[in-house]
Amino acid sequence: MESIVSHLIDLGAMNLPEDERDAKLQPVTQDGVAPDDFYVSTIYPTEVRIKGKWVKVHSQRMDGALAITETSKGITAQCKILRDLNVGEQVVVDVQGIRTIRKTESREKRNTEEFSFMSAGVSSERRVELIVEQVAWELRKIRDAGGKAIVTAGPVVILTGGGEQLSQLIREGYVQGLLGGNAIAVHDIEQSIMGTSLGVDMKRGISVRGGHRHHLKAINNVRRHGSIAKAVEAGMIISGVMYECVKNNVSFALAGSIRDDGPLPDTQMDLIKAQQEYAEILKGADMILMLSTMLHSIGVGNMTPAGVKMVCVDINPAVVTKLSDRGSVESVGVVTDVGLFLSLLVQHMDKLTSLYTAQVW
Amino acid sequence: MESIVSHLIDLGAMNLPEDERDAKLQPVTQDGVAPDDFYVSTIYPTEVRIKGKWVKVHSQRMDGALAITETSKGITAQCKILRDLNVGEQVVVDVQGIRTIRKTESREKRNTEEFSFMSAGVSSERRVELIVEQVAWELRKIRDAGGKAIVTAGPVVILTGGGEQLSQLIREGYVQGLLGGNAIAVHDIEQSIMGTSLGVDMKRGISVRGGHRHHLKAINNVRRHGSIAKAVEAGMIISGVMYECVKNNVSFALAGSIRDDGPLPDTQMDLIKAQQEYAEILKGADMILMLSTMLHSIGVGNMTPAGVKMVCVDINPAVVTKLSDRGSVESVGVVTDVGLFLSLLVQHMDKLTSLYTAQVW
Amino acid sequence: MESIVSHLIDLGAMNLPEDERDAKLQPVTQDGVAPDDFYVSTIYPTEVRIKGKWVKVHSQRMDGALAITETSKGITAQCKILRDLNVGEQVVVDVQGIRTIRKTESREKRNTEEFSFMSAGVSSERRVELIVEQVAWELRKIRDAGGKAIVTAGPVVILTGGGEQLSQLIREGYVQGLLGGNAIAVHDIEQSIMGTSLGVDMKRGISVRGGHRHHLKAINNVRRHGSIAKAVEAGMIISGVMYECVKNNVSFALAGSIRDDGPLPDTQMDLIKAQQEYAEILKGADMILMLSTMLHSIGVGNMTPAGVKMVCVDINPAVVTKLSDRGSVESVGVVTDVGLFLSLLVQHMDKLTSLYTAQVW
Amino acid sequence: MESIVSHLIDLGAMNLPEDERDAKLQPVTQDGVAPDDFYVSTIYPTEVRIKGKWVKVHSQRMDGALAITETSKGITAQCKILRDLNVGEQVVVDVQGIRTIRKTESREKRNTEEFSFMSAGVSSERRVELIVEQVAWELRKIRDAGGKAIVTAGPVVILTGGGEQLSQLIREGYVQGLLGGNAIAVHDIEQSIMGTSLGVDMKRGISVRGGHRHHLKAINNVRRHGSIAKAVEAGMIISGVMYECVKNNVSFALAGSIRDDGPLPDTQMDLIKAQQEYAEILKGADMILMLSTMLHSIGVGNMTPAGVKMVCVDINPAVVTKLSDRGSVESVGVVTDVGLFLSLLVQHMDKLTSLYTAQVW
Repeated sequence: MESIVSHLIDLGAMNLPEDERDAKLQPVTQDGVAPDDFYVSTIYPTEVRIKGKWVKVHSQRMDGALAITETSKGITAQCKILRDLNVGEQVVVDVQGIRTIRKTESREKRNTEEFSFMSAGVSSERRVELIVEQVAWELRKIRDAGGKAIVTAGPVVILTGGGEQLSQLIREGYVQGLLGGNAIAVHDIEQSIMGTSLGVDMKRGISVRGGHRHHLKAINNVRRHGSIAKAVEAGMIISGVMYECVKNNVSFALAGSIRDDGPLPDTQMDLIKAQQEYAEILKGADMILMLSTMLHSIGVGNMTPAGVKMVCVDINPAVVTKLSDRGSVESVGVVTDVGLFLSLLVQHMDKLTSLYTAQVW
Repeated sequence: MESIVSHLIDLGAMNLPEDERDAKLQPVTQDGVAPDDFYVSTIYPTEVRIKGKWVKVHSQRMDGALAITETSKGITAQCKILRDLNVGEQVVVDVQGIRTIRKTESREKRNTEEFSFMSAGVSSERRVELIVEQVAWELRKIRDAGGKAIVTAGPVVILTGGGEQLSQLIREGYVQGLLGGNAIAVHDIEQSIMGTSLGVDMKRGISVRGGHRHHLKAINNVRRHGSIAKAVEAGMIISGVMYECVKNNVSFALAGSIRDDGPLPDTQMDLIKAQQEYAEILKGADMILMLSTMLHSIGVGNMTPAGVKMVCVDINPAVVTKLSDRGSVESVGVVTDVGLFLSLLVQHMDKLTSLYTAQVW
Repeated sequence: MESIVSHLIDLGAMNLPEDERDAKLQPVTQDGVAPDDFYVSTIYPTEVRIKGKWVKVHSQRMDGALAITETSKGITAQCKILRDLNVGEQVVVDVQGIRTIRKTESREKRNTEEFSFMSAGVSSERRVELIVEQVAWELRKIRDAGGKAIVTAGPVVILTGGGEQLSQLIREGYVQGLLGGNAIAVHDIEQSIMGTSLGVDMKRGISVRGGHRHHLKAINNVRRHGSIAKAVEAGMIISGVMYECVKNNVSFALAGSIRDDGPLPDTQMDLIKAQQEYAEILKGADMILMLSTMLHSIGVGNMTPAGVKMVCVDINPAVVTKLSDRGSVESVGVVTDVGLFLSLLVQHMDKLTSLYTAQVW
Repeated sequence: MESIVSHLIDLGAMNLPEDERDAKLQPVTQDGVAPDDFYVSTIYPTEVRIKGKWVKVHSQRMDGALAITETSKGITAQCKILRDLNVGEQVVVDVQGIRTIRKTESREKRNTEEFSFMSAGVSSERRVELIVEQVAWELRKIRDAGGKAIVTAGPVVILTGGGEQLSQLIREGYVQGLLGGNAIAVHDIEQSIMGTSLGVDMKRGISVRGGHRHHLKAINNVRRHGSIAKAVEAGMIISGVMYECVKNNVSFALAGSIRDDGPLPDTQMDLIKAQQEYAEILKGADMILMLSTMLHSIGVGNMTPAGVKMVCVDINPAVVTKLSDRGSVESVGVVTDVGLFLSLLVQHMDKLTSLYTAQVW
């Protein structure tokens, strides 16, 4: 029983007797390097005890160090990734004088009950449509409350025919930020200007002669205009996911990768900057919809504190398990085809809209 | 180039110069055993040259032997599985005097163009909705022409919430036969009488206390009545896939397997008989929809001659590849969640119905 | 905390205050049918309180009913599958007067520590070689102690080149029973007599011309002899997995399935009998090695009480999860290629043998 | 038949009647942007007809443009990615005056027969050990001939216990370059200095208390030293894959990604530079072994011309299919656990060495 209790404490299910000692601090002696035994941050809200007072840590995220700065205005504690540490800061070492709160106030206020059922592991053998309904309901609530829903999307969204539905979600105000890479934007723009995606006609499902060159022509065209926004302005891109982002002022960030052709002028090949752009868009997010992109979703997961709902959709159970396995109740994994998922999601959004409209009248 | 041509011949893409020799025959000397060098049948329509005449083979299927019987009424050739061979029959050996027709007349008459696009390999990265539309269209055509569409279904159909949609398809006359095992029927009946499937509440997606016992209670209940049909008659089963089969006189066959609990009284644990029941229901099928059951679908595939459209839906790409890889143009593989697939399929059927109704008026 | 405790009780981690009431019994009124509210058995050792005394349940297995018979010799309790219930027996209903022991004595005696690490979930991202070593060690211990190790094997064992290694394990006495279906035996015999498996030359890895017919010729040949044992006796089969079973008097049972061609004369197409044959071979097993066959392994899992070590090897993570997810510490899942697994396993067995030999001398 | 021929031409299986027209050229009018209808390059050796002469294209790769420069020294043609195009260059547009050679001379010289069997599609149901033997043989030949074998590796190599074997291959001279990302290096260094990988003890397979922090401590330690090479020099890293690279002067390039923590000082977060580093290491490669990293392997595939042998190993069939599906005979896909693959590979290398040594004596 003892070992069970100790495990429960680890899981944050129980409160420890308050640790009455101050946290141990050591100075940063080299920019971008932490002291040897630095405390590694988690996704949970954290407080550090300094001079007898509990100080809340800002910018909570996984795998950071806790940097303490003392100025005339007082003591601040910030969660920083290693490379952002500066000489002059103090860093928390060891594990004493630190407490994390697993059940945040904000999470209790927002009724998360409806999410709890979904977190019961990952399986391709359960009813996806139930989750679709709840995601629709959640997106609607967030929009109506002026909240923030972020989508990370991979090129498979376009290849499986979900581009139209994702465009609609953006157009109707359900998406406040889009995170992805070069490929989702290229495939989307190819479809917009040539009707194909990786050379496959999306209306008829057949490969077009010479179509394998289309994605490079799409890239080249945008490069000529200088940016996606300018290509939209110039009337070159007249529909699609990126078009709706530009037209509806929805921020997007495209992170480069080693496999990128071109790339598009908007693709950020400096990943230090790309991570900053991602973090900026993620700030204050209420929900993140992760659509068929393990790479970008893992990046997003690391940057995101507890309390943010995450829905991860992928055809590969291993990816869903990896992404939704954060130990937090708000992560939901769905093993399914992302095209059908979006198709049904938009239908449920439409139903909700009819319902609301009916109620008003 | 020569090897390419020889390969094309193998594929049936070209006609060989007519083989002017008679087939070689050897007698069956032991029931259920073929002569050593017997010709193994394929799914393609086959003719055997006997005494200078081409005789069409009946009951074409894969992996059979060609049994020749000569009576006063003439010569008949039949494709038989090994265990059905009888002393007194002649069996074709070697490969001479045999021709197969890869493009059957019936397939040309039915315009199969709409299917051709789909057979371009298996991938989870393409637009499933296009295939859904075409399957809807095809099912509608078959029903209106008085044809025969068969469904093989695994328990995942019920677990992913597709039971209601499959029930509707049966009720509306789109399905002429159902093939499966013990599990699909048990899960369906559990849902019908207890609202759960493997103990999971299908409306709310949560496990019910003690729910893991539900499937055995369902089995026990049906055993008490003696058969599914009697349980329907008695008002014990009042909805679901099996209910609709009984009510709409749609034949079904449930093949037993080594893993079966119970089983249901309808589950055929003698597999020789189960294979016969399957073959009976498959006779004359125009289309087979294979929904998330590799085991039963492979069995069905072996029994089915070329010219029958097959659509195989599974979340596991390896299963889809295995099932749709028959070298025949009519096999289509779809990697997706079967619950969403059925949900969208029924919507497309409904649209078609509105369309037809509108046209009439 | 309360709900956690109640959950722990469910898991068997804690002892309940002794239930001082007798179990409720109801008579069987129809052969093969249990009373409505019958208690459904688990894999854990179970005792039933009858007339104030705890009676141990025999033939423990999952998803059975507890049948109580009172004779002059006393009261017996037996775990029976539904179809085996007879009029005249009493069946336990409700949940009172039943206790299950999760930690069995036998399991504590056998030091199972070495197995505990492995049960930490299923992932393709961990070190398989560690598990191989421990399985080797375990098989050696079982053999030397005169224990019983059973293998369930699918055809993929042969296709991935593991036939030779499995043959060696049998020959060297590490396997006391083999469970499978028609396919594993057919592929193995095809390889033995023709050097191919599904027509692929196993030495060179290339398809042999006309090789797709080989498996049927293998079946036909064995049918001619009447059984695998007779084909071995006649010198037709001179090596391989089935050969070693026959030569070393290792029992095997081949359960039929709806997909079976032929089948071999040894394949039991009556599944009631096949389940009996399986149960017989499994009786008293210490360890079960499940090699790439979900179907047969699920069947085996249902028949097997807690306390038997299970190692499940499959390339598909979903299969491994399903098979090793029994809630018992002795189940280990390994996601890997079964051919390489067996190749390394045999190497480790050989190392152990050298080690032992060295020690002796 | 006509359409078959046209398809064969597309596949490069047949020679077209020589195109007697010059290629069409258009000037680059904006840096990094090609003319509208630019010809998109393939992996195959290409020649362009300019002023009646066929000019060989240098730096062949996929998805580039053909840039033509005319100087006093003559005409040069180079395959360039879009962003590298400069004003002043001419780019080939349309498809006339271009020829590609599918069977290169170098490939014919090196007998590639042994590779042909392996390219017969991707399946988890075939004998991996045969491929292992051939890869061992090939690596040996390349080393002895002073050739170049490159490895791309993901962190799963370390997690599955393959680090030791990959280290051995590097130490013994079988690897001339290593391509990967931040994670493979971090996991490897964590294992070297703490004995764990992602906190899992690699000798015992169990999670170490607090081990999830280990990888960040490893990163922090290397950051303190300034680079992996300096950490090796300082005696902080004393074994492992990265250690062997440094000690044996094997070039490596670590490409950053959006998910990277830290990162290591050696991880190139500017992807333009990372792609250049990759290209540099890949120059003149004879063989590429792709070990469980889709991201980096796709990047590598795009940069690599035809004629380079590729072996792709992954537990996920979809990844293997995607990577090995380049339409070239030299790509081989293997669905298996990479840890066991490397374990067996090293054994076969050792056998070859014993063999060679025996022959010499």
